[in-house]
Amino acid sequence: MTEMNIDIDALMHELEELAAFSDTPPPSVTRVLWTETDQKARAYLKRRIEEAGFSWREDAIGNIFATFEGKNPRLPKVGTGSHIDAIPHAGKYDGTVGVLGGLEAMRALKRSGFQPRRSIELLVFNAEEPTRFGVGCLGSRMLSGALKPEEALKFRDQDHMSFDDARAQGGFLGDLGKVQLSDQHYFAFVELHIEQMPNLEKAGLPIGVVTAIAAPSSFKLHLTGQGGHAGAVLMPDRKDAFLAASEIALCIEQAVKDHGTIDTVGTVGLVQVHPNAINSIPSKVELGVDLRDIEATRRDRVLQSLLQAAEDICLKRGIRMELEMLNQDPPSKSDPMLVKTIQSNCEKLGIPYQNMVSRAYHDSLFMARIAPTAMIFIPCKDGISHRPDEYASPEHIRTGVEVLAGVLRDLGEV
Amino acid sequence: MTEMNIDIDALMHELEELAAFSDTPPPSVTRVLWTETDQKARAYLKRRIEEAGFSWREDAIGNIFATFEGKNPRLPKVGTGSHIDAIPHAGKYDGTVGVLGGLEAMRALKRSGFQPRRSIELLVFNAEEPTRFGVGCLGSRMLSGALKPEEALKFRDQDHMSFDDARAQGGFLGDLGKVQLSDQHYFAFVELHIEQMPNLEKAGLPIGVVTAIAAPSSFKLHLTGQGGHAGAVLMPDRKDAFLAASEIALCIEQAVKDHGTIDTVGTVGLVQVHPNAINSIPSKVELGVDLRDIEATRRDRVLQSLLQAAEDICLKRGIRMELEMLNQDPPSKSDPMLVKTIQSNCEKLGIPYQNMVSRAYHDSLFMARIAPTAMIFIPCKDGISHRPDEYASPEHIRTGVEVLAGVLRDLGEV
Repeated sequence: MTEMNIDIDALMHELEELAAFSDTPPPSVTRVLWTETDQKARAYLKRRIEEAGFSWREDAIGNIFATFEGKNPRLPKVGTGSHIDAIPHAGKYDGTVGVLGGLEAMRALKRSGFQPRRSIELLVFNAEEPTRFGVGCLGSRMLSGALKPEEALKFRDQDHMSFDDARAQGGFLGDLGKVQLSDQHYFAFVELHIEQMPNLEKAGLPIGVVTAIAAPSSFKLHLTGQGGHAGAVLMPDRKDAFLAASEIALCIEQAVKDHGTIDTVGTVGLVQVHPNAINSIPSKVELGVDLRDIEATRRDRVLQSLLQAAEDICLKRGIRMELEMLNQDPPSKSDPMLVKTIQSNCEKLGIPYQNMVSRAYHDSLFMARIAPTAMIFIPCKDGISHRPDEYASPEHIRTGVEVLAGVLRDLGEV
Repeated sequence: MTEMNIDIDALMHELEELAAFSDTPPPSVTRVLWTETDQKARAYLKRRIEEAGFSWREDAIGNIFATFEGKNPRLPKVGTGSHIDAIPHAGKYDGTVGVLGGLEAMRALKRSGFQPRRSIELLVFNAEEPTRFGVGCLGSRMLSGALKPEEALKFRDQDHMSFDDARAQGGFLGDLGKVQLSDQHYFAFVELHIEQMPNLEKAGLPIGVVTAIAAPSSFKLHLTGQGGHAGAVLMPDRKDAFLAASEIALCIEQAVKDHGTIDTVGTVGLVQVHPNAINSIPSKVELGVDLRDIEATRRDRVLQSLLQAAEDICLKRGIRMELEMLNQDPPSKSDPMLVKTIQSNCEKLGIPYQNMVSRAYHDSLFMARIAPTAMIFIPCKDGISHRPDEYASPEHIRTGVEVLAGVLRDLGEV
């Protein structure tokens, strides 16, 4: 076994530099698809890839592929990667650890004098976060064919900009039909990521081997009541859309508790009130709801129960409700042999690990449709993510990259 | 009694033209203090005033005074007027009927060959709506001394722009100390306005004589919980600020019903959620609440009750709550002799009317601190206001302006 040296100082420095490309002040990170800030972060990443001596290409929506060429480059490749986009006021490690960590794993392999048989490819996914178009994993959905070009072209962002206008603003003009990858493209795909829950930290373990990814469902509820002057319309005459929204938010919490298990979570994360003036009765409210579980049937049972309750609330309050389903994806199971490869690398390095389920959504959920896929988790402090105080320690990041590099090496030689 | 001809066609045309100065598409009207659109609307209004042969001045914050000079211009003046600002997605008639209607009343008096003993002055108040700085009646508060320059200078708008920077952007630079009017400035002040409730329409009456204005109280609740990834944080570990906000909104509705009367109204009109992403647990929520009643003591009892309930909710959910009181003004009673003058003008013209209370907030609430004040209400369709479909008929507007003109003539001769 070749000894590998992970340059953790360089990697931590790069994570800091990448975090500086943000639309909100540090320590928060906000990086939204196809914005100027996103473009600057991409340019930074491409320079790092070139400096490492790897070539790169970008597809028609901006997924970046960086290649460590193998002796037989026509063989299906070994893929790794994650995303660099960040929701408003997020942190430094979500996604970026898998991107810059994946790059460092490739650099470490190259530094060790290794050349793989198959090419090893770093994939930087476009927009894992649903910030711009309300749909998560835009890049991997299109790569895997789960989202077709004609469906994507119907999307509009919050400023009503069309998908294609936004894409053009980001500088991407190519044929959307060429984004989808063949299922022969990858021999296997493995993603390194922070856990985003406190389980590894609590168990005192540096590595989690992901055996399944929970099934998320997200939807919007559009509520329409009747506006009016806050001083002038008497209480019995009101059809206040925000009061209905409030009842619905509480009933979502209740439905998750009543019909789910500890693995069931429901969140109203997005709230848009119209006209949103202190002295005006809300006439319209848009709620963005995220519901997930590791069992699709249980998740869908909770969904049905909460939608029924929401309809009752709206009927009672004279509010019109429209449901806009954003996605309702099936859960994915990791590839058993790939899981074993990760486990055996941990064992060779003497690193303790546990198998676990990912409750958060990842690009690997979609990559699993076109390639044998698994994920490597490392702990993050207090399980905090999507917040400026998200934190993963250099030691844990180093360990994760070391395991990843070993896996890439093993798979690259198969 | 001189016969007066109200040119209702010209007036309706002017209401339409003024409505075109908007930051949102027709039929909605959005006109916020010191924006470019506000400046254009002001310029339009000044041209109409000049065309009518009246002089005008603007004070240091942009309140506009248009003068129909009397034979003895040093006597305390007769004032009329209202506002032209509009909350986001509002309608065409709120405020503007009192401004353009007041102007038409002055024009009609002038056309009839009348010259008053006292000057008659049209006052266009700055920012009756709280849109920009969260405080309603900014212009009349400063004119009446209810808001001091040093207090106003502390205000910041939602983009954190300071009061004085915003004022400078609007082109106003003068001494704020000179805005407050002496209580000798006006002999009396009368405001024409749409009712914003359906009572006159239901009663089939064209005129309401306002005998009191309800006492509004408005405040913000700043709620801070704990954010995190919507998929990763289990339900029992959450401190979701939006769920607390939802409970509070429902408890405000309940407190108003339990401790108020039919005259008590409470509204959560403003909701800002942070970070407001569909897959992120809300870490912070700002609620803007408006509570009003014609009895200040009852309103304050409801306020105490709901704040207590909100504290209990936050304690239970592990949320930190901060109260920001925006205003808590006493109610105002109209001047009895002015009320009688309005009534007698209705009677002279054979126009049926009823006395009524204004539950909505008006600049007259503050003008009552420095002048004998009353208001004339006309019906609006279904009581709808602060919405694009706000509507007052030409007949009702004509009747309102006719009564106003008669009152201005009577007072101008005293």
